[in-house]
Amino acid sequence: MKFTINRSVFANQLNNVLRAISSKTTIPILTGVKIVVEDQQVILTGSNADITIQTTLSAENGKTALTIEEPGAIVLPARFFSEIIKKLPDQDVTIEVHDGFQAKISSGTAEFQINGQDANNYPHLPEIQSASTITAVADLLRDVVEQTRIAVSKQESRPILTGIHMRLADDQLVAVATDSHRLAQRKVTVPTNGQSYDVVIPGNSMTELARMIADVKGDIQIQIAENQVLFQFDNALFYSRLLEGMYPETSRLIPDTADTTIELEAGNFLAAIDRASLLSHQGHNNVVKLSLDPDTNTAKISGDSADVGNVEEDVSFEKLTGNKLEISFNPDYMSDALKSFGQASVLLSFTSPLRPFTLVPTEDQENFVQLITPVRTF
Amino acid sequence: MKFTINRSVFANQLNNVLRAISSKTTIPILTGVKIVVEDQQVILTGSNADITIQTTLSAENGKTALTIEEPGAIVLPARFFSEIIKKLPDQDVTIEVHDGFQAKISSGTAEFQINGQDANNYPHLPEIQSASTITAVADLLRDVVEQTRIAVSKQESRPILTGIHMRLADDQLVAVATDSHRLAQRKVTVPTNGQSYDVVIPGNSMTELARMIADVKGDIQIQIAENQVLFQFDNALFYSRLLEGMYPETSRLIPDTADTTIELEAGNFLAAIDRASLLSHQGHNNVVKLSLDPDTNTAKISGDSADVGNVEEDVSFEKLTGNKLEISFNPDYMSDALKSFGQASVLLSFTSPLRPFTLVPTEDQENFVQLITPVRTF
Repeated sequence: MKFTINRSVFANQLNNVLRAISSKTTIPILTGVKIVVEDQQVILTGSNADITIQTTLSAENGKTALTIEEPGAIVLPARFFSEIIKKLPDQDVTIEVHDGFQAKISSGTAEFQINGQDANNYPHLPEIQSASTITAVADLLRDVVEQTRIAVSKQESRPILTGIHMRLADDQLVAVATDSHRLAQRKVTVPTNGQSYDVVIPGNSMTELARMIADVKGDIQIQIAENQVLFQFDNALFYSRLLEGMYPETSRLIPDTADTTIELEAGNFLAAIDRASLLSHQGHNNVVKLSLDPDTNTAKISGDSADVGNVEEDVSFEKLTGNKLEISFNPDYMSDALKSFGQASVLLSFTSPLRPFTLVPTEDQENFVQLITPVRTF
Repeated sequence: MKFTINRSVFANQLNNVLRAISSKTTIPILTGVKIVVEDQQVILTGSNADITIQTTLSAENGKTALTIEEPGAIVLPARFFSEIIKKLPDQDVTIEVHDGFQAKISSGTAEFQINGQDANNYPHLPEIQSASTITAVADLLRDVVEQTRIAVSKQESRPILTGIHMRLADDQLVAVATDSHRLAQRKVTVPTNGQSYDVVIPGNSMTELARMIADVKGDIQIQIAENQVLFQFDNALFYSRLLEGMYPETSRLIPDTADTTIELEAGNFLAAIDRASLLSHQGHNNVVKLSLDPDTNTAKISGDSADVGNVEEDVSFEKLTGNKLEISFNPDYMSDALKSFGQASVLLSFTSPLRPFTLVPTEDQENFVQLITPVRTF
């Protein structure tokens, strides 16, 4: 095996594959990256229990400056190999395997010899046998992930909640995540070609996918099999396993009436919440209180921590209607939710101090909702 | 006590005082910042066992936008108070003490009440009774610290080596640090007015001072007393305790002859050392080897780690003279030393594989030297 390639192009693709590679794995060979050199291309593969990523560097793409002298395959220690590639002195790098599983990496006057492993021992890719493909725009898919992943559970006690529930049907994708304290739901239009799917994808997989497609323009091809999903884009394949089990029914959790509503600018409110949480983070319970009084047209957040002090701030808003209300919540949940709206105007709808409340964009109230369960303080 | 001040100016000065404040202190009141409000100025003080920093914000300086309504004093929890100041919404902030030791912090529509402590319980400043002052340019003093602090010992087993040895006499400052594996020595011209001093200042104090004077233009006034040193600049006082004990005699450690010398560009060599250390960091002993052969006019660095692999690189240089030599050393020491030279040309001088070797700037071989002890590998 021997090939020469542009070092920065190679380093970028290695970086992508590294997303799937963990140094904490029970299968030692998975700490490595598999490099397969064919006649006209180099294929990199990285994998862990959840995700497998494969990218292809083709000689036909001029940017790779790829010249192949001899096909072959090897598995090299992924982080170490990638560190070496990043620090080499020259624009190009040559990688050659000789004496069994020793790889020679040379660039300029620098030459590394590192020990690899037999690529035949590397696990096979998941198999996806699915005739039909769903196509989604990369930007849209990334938004869906960014707006729902904050509500994904980090507790392994209910594994199904560590995933994002994705339902595809009738030209619509509905994505839901909840950790049972909060919930995020996003609906987008995606052509489903008469197909329908109902799957739960690990939140970590979707977060890595969102990062990896940050710069991808254009479409993502999605194929769904019984226990795997495959996202295809540019020169990459991104496999994730699916979570097994029934996702809880969440549609009834979202209230459809409101007794008190307030419209405000997400960015301003976020700054006020962040200030109030400076204090709540010092105390035993991380709670702030929002007091809404439509009669006097005032909105106020406050926090109290016996040892440290207290905070109070008038909140500026666009519109306040309904009943007077005092409600307490975890400011970190509110902060996460507000960040997912960017600088938009947001409508908060409340029913009572102990019932979940919702945030939706004022401009598009149907397709995106963040729900937060309040904290009982009395 | 009540005053109003420009928030960002106040936050900057708070930041400076925070350098001296540790959350891990055995004296609880020292986790706080002391704020003293006088007729025309606000004085902030922070302190730990080693360093005390005091800065003064004056109403006469228009940038402070300082208006004082009532003098007084308080100690407030430093990190928490500083976080609040940073995140407040308005350009100005008003701080008022009422009900004993409660401080009200208000800015725009936000209002915090935080619990403080009696300023009378805050320790007094160190006393410096020294008639004479030494004046040094801030830039020069910072260079001296940056170039020597890498060799300061991090081991508490020989406390005196955790300091920088500073000798002032005959219009010269000689600064030396050594952890007994390496040594850094810098000489600069400083007018000593016939005075002479020989002190050891904790390395951490000097590092904080160097950071604090990063943007200071002009002079630093230095006053040295029996167990304290005071640096005065702009509107700040920076006190550090001195280390007690005799600093070891170091001048004889620096060899004055050389059997092999090489001149090279520090930046290029640093990159090669960093590459070689990728491999040495994986192995049990963190060592790389430099092989110099003036006969064939070649210089090579190499590293070897049985489990991982090996590395070899031809080093480019300007001039190589003397005897053939192979020498092994810790690449991290070499990397630290090379960084202290920036992009300059450096002369390395060796006597034998087991004797310390030196690095000096090719352009100024007298006033700055880094010394490294090699590692025995045979």
